[in-house]
Amino acid sequence: MDVLIPFDATAPKTRLGPVLSPSERATFARVMLDDVLAAVRTAGGNPEVLATEAIDSPARVTVDERSLDTVVNHHLDTAHGPVAVVMADLALATPDALSALFDTDGDVVLAPGRGGGTNAIVVRHEDFRVDYHAASIRDHRSIAAEIGARVADVDSYRLGTDVDDPADLAEVLLHGQGAAAGWLREQGFELAVSGGRVGVER
Amino acid sequence: MDVLIPFDATAPKTRLGPVLSPSERATFARVMLDDVLAAVRTAGGNPEVLATEAIDSPARVTVDERSLDTVVNHHLDTAHGPVAVVMADLALATPDALSALFDTDGDVVLAPGRGGGTNAIVVRHEDFRVDYHAASIRDHRSIAAEIGARVADVDSYRLGTDVDDPADLAEVLLHGQGAAAGWLREQGFELAVSGGRVGVER
Repeated sequence: MDVLIPFDATAPKTRLGPVLSPSERATFARVMLDDVLAAVRTAGGNPEVLATEAIDSPARVTVDERSLDTVVNHHLDTAHGPVAVVMADLALATPDALSALFDTDGDVVLAPGRGGGTNAIVVRHEDFRVDYHAASIRDHRSIAAEIGARVADVDSYRLGTDVDDPADLAEVLLHGQGAAAGWLREQGFELAVSGGRVGVER
Repeated sequence: MDVLIPFDATAPKTRLGPVLSPSERATFARVMLDDVLAAVRTAGGNPEVLATEAIDSPARVTVDERSLDTVVNHHLDTAHGPVAVVMADLALATPDALSALFDTDGDVVLAPGRGGGTNAIVVRHEDFRVDYHAASIRDHRSIAAEIGARVADVDSYRLGTDVDDPADLAEVLLHGQGAAAGWLREQGFELAVSGGRVGVER
């Protein structure tokens, strides 16, 4: 399975600004990307990073500074066979979770993310195109229905958890199995429980 | 599988106070409970509601006003065979998701919830007891390790999404397949997209 991994190399993870400096955010985004790349490869995927600017990586990287939708749909335009699109900040993704995604039948297979996002998708229908604006999971279901594509959902907490906000770092510490959790601990982050809520402190 | 469903009938869903009145919260909590009961039964489970006070329900209800841990552990003390504990606010739970939980091998099977919670659990080890304080998923892993119980995780977005905060209502509108989503729509709730975030408005 060809797997596209869009990556914002320019200003990654700005919503983590309250807890990480710009250079830390850049490093953390790269650590998460490398975790996702490793999990994709172990699951049998053939990854290609679509980066907004050049990055130093042993992975196959294509630089394209156009918008997320434009870049992904350009690849779908020219694809032969199934294509997956997996977000670069799925720090909880495991090979098992990705294998379940790749192995699920359907013209369009969707892994919903919290807040209406589409954290991962498999496209096996030549007319399907992405639209990653807010509540994209709803839009992707509509687009699939319009072209008569069979939709399947993958029910995965690991794929459903993308890392955008400081609260998401608690998820990485609790459930991460890759380098991102270790990196956070090296930077001094640990779980903090306050008023029944779980967050992080440094 | 015997399935315990703890239910706060006294002051349910207080964190939804910004968007629902006390009587609406009581009704919504009951609608979610009924969704969970239906999904548990379809998945082959034998549910028993553990309620803090009497409720009018065709389900089997045991009233016990003691703390959550005390009530659940009292049942584990006297259990013969496997017991599941499923939270009453899993409005996204489907029979498929619950079947996956019930069918996963392990002395202790955990379905993590967002923020370190344990949204559902199957106990097949006579020495295991619950501790539902914050970051309970970590504590449950520790308790299982101490008694030599084999732990398995269930990777489910549906079981991982409990409904506590107003933002969680968007998850119900986006992904709910039971009566809770319909009830919210009847009360005038709909998805609202603001600044790239998805929430609800009424």
